[in-house]
Amino acid sequence: MPVPNSAGAEFAVIDRWRRRLPGPPAGETWIGDDAAVLLLGDGPVLLTTDMSIAGVHADLTLMGLDDLGWRAVAAAVSDIAAMGGRAAHVLAAVAGPPSTDLDTLLGGISAAVAAHRCALVGGDLSNAADVVVVVSVTGLVDDTPGPVRRRGARSGDELFVTGPLGAAAAGLRSLRAGTAPDTAETGPSVVEAFLRPRARLAQGQAARRAGASAMIDISDGLAADLGHLARASGVGFDLDQIPVAAGATIEEALGGGEDYELVFAAPDGDRVRRHFADGGLAPPTAIGRCTADQNRRQWDGEPLPTVGWQHGWS
Amino acid sequence: MPVPNSAGAEFAVIDRWRRRLPGPPAGETWIGDDAAVLLLGDGPVLLTTDMSIAGVHADLTLMGLDDLGWRAVAAAVSDIAAMGGRAAHVLAAVAGPPSTDLDTLLGGISAAVAAHRCALVGGDLSNAADVVVVVSVTGLVDDTPGPVRRRGARSGDELFVTGPLGAAAAGLRSLRAGTAPDTAETGPSVVEAFLRPRARLAQGQAARRAGASAMIDISDGLAADLGHLARASGVGFDLDQIPVAAGATIEEALGGGEDYELVFAAPDGDRVRRHFADGGLAPPTAIGRCTADQNRRQWDGEPLPTVGWQHGWS
Repeated sequence: MPVPNSAGAEFAVIDRWRRRLPGPPAGETWIGDDAAVLLLGDGPVLLTTDMSIAGVHADLTLMGLDDLGWRAVAAAVSDIAAMGGRAAHVLAAVAGPPSTDLDTLLGGISAAVAAHRCALVGGDLSNAADVVVVVSVTGLVDDTPGPVRRRGARSGDELFVTGPLGAAAAGLRSLRAGTAPDTAETGPSVVEAFLRPRARLAQGQAARRAGASAMIDISDGLAADLGHLARASGVGFDLDQIPVAAGATIEEALGGGEDYELVFAAPDGDRVRRHFADGGLAPPTAIGRCTADQNRRQWDGEPLPTVGWQHGWS
Repeated sequence: MPVPNSAGAEFAVIDRWRRRLPGPPAGETWIGDDAAVLLLGDGPVLLTTDMSIAGVHADLTLMGLDDLGWRAVAAAVSDIAAMGGRAAHVLAAVAGPPSTDLDTLLGGISAAVAAHRCALVGGDLSNAADVVVVVSVTGLVDDTPGPVRRRGARSGDELFVTGPLGAAAAGLRSLRAGTAPDTAETGPSVVEAFLRPRARLAQGQAARRAGASAMIDISDGLAADLGHLARASGVGFDLDQIPVAAGATIEEALGGGEDYELVFAAPDGDRVRRHFADGGLAPPTAIGRCTADQNRRQWDGEPLPTVGWQHGWS
């Protein structure tokens, strides 16, 4: 349920507490990016945690517990992808009513862990009224340059997304309608995109190696998440195209986040395309450029609608 | 609410999934100890996650949200103490109804983070029907020997606890009775022990440096947690004394876990006492010895009652 960003006290609470708490030493990033960057041993270690709660992030009338488990892992791993890392270790804290089919839930978690080539190294189990899965992930950055933060985009940088947007939102729409998607129009993929998303780890690493100046994963919708990147970097943007997934609407492409594509800025677009091609990856889509005017958020000369998911903290 | 261990499918689920999943490389420990041991960079990194849920782990009619937040951090950090590490980085995933006073909750979390000399480096916020706090912590081991696991105790090793047991359970009893504790009998500490426990980080490090062969934190009660250590190590035990906190009963000392004292085995008791004294720490209490017979779990020549906290997964 997208709500206007202006209503979102979630970010206000995080900002307030970030200012109140001790800050990181040089070279580390703590609260406020997709993942924390910690200097442990011989390289940066990424660390992130992400909650998935039945009734808030997942409707168990539309998906199985295995899907909920998979999506919880993908959402957390996506934060590692957004920093240009590879996922290494996963902790899964799992709670639910005593009747919860834990084997199905853990089956989805472990399948997603395997699909993202990381390892489940620990966790916790508890009773709770609702099914709750909290996934914490470590990420490693094996080569240079280092992790890509949200801040760092500069005026003139080209903006890219790693794939067409809105497929997961279209899949959710299809599940809610109770009809099989029109596979002639969409292919079988939109429901799969919603139920079994994959974090764009290879794409995030390619973007980092190609000199990306800022990156974020699209978990709350392009409009909201590109807004976070622009705000953190102190830039605005002019978009000239938004790639819409087959079967999705433009609203789903702008406001639907659970595809977990990445959006990033880079000063050298040709270098980006070369790195993606060398990695055997589909080319990212150039969607526009960063501007010096922080207040400029345009798409085809009009203000970009600001819709996105927030969780209504007050 | 302690339930018999035999009812606890929680451990059975964890055991089953540990056997099913890929295991760790040499030198690492994954599922089944207090914390995972990972080889990242130039030394072992500890990683753990712990859930605290209102109505399951915490009764909000008896404590404030700040207490719940503090206790969630202490419980997670205690897993680092149990490996002989120091706590480094904390992630806090926090959820609750929209009316939740997040500033009070985050105030308790950040106060506990400061008290345990670590740093809050990230987190997640969400709506949920119940208040849920999931704390993930990294720990570092700065010197040799390495982290102390649950397995490793040998027949003849002396067993120690880091302090008297049952204070937190007595504090909970006092809060439930709605009466101030008899401070002449207990001191003011039992309610404080319950609401504001402190992980025994310095004691865990002293035990590790003194050559502890196995260690665990007492979160589910001495009987249950010493049982885990004995089972993992393939030993039994003979106890000759159990130190009971002032104001607590022997049942609270055996079955109450939320003091977060540590129990550990060590081959050289004099070395243990010397390390604790050198660190300015109160001496640990020698409670008995490990035996070769795995099925032997005796206290003063009688079988030790097996009660402890479990969360009733079925």
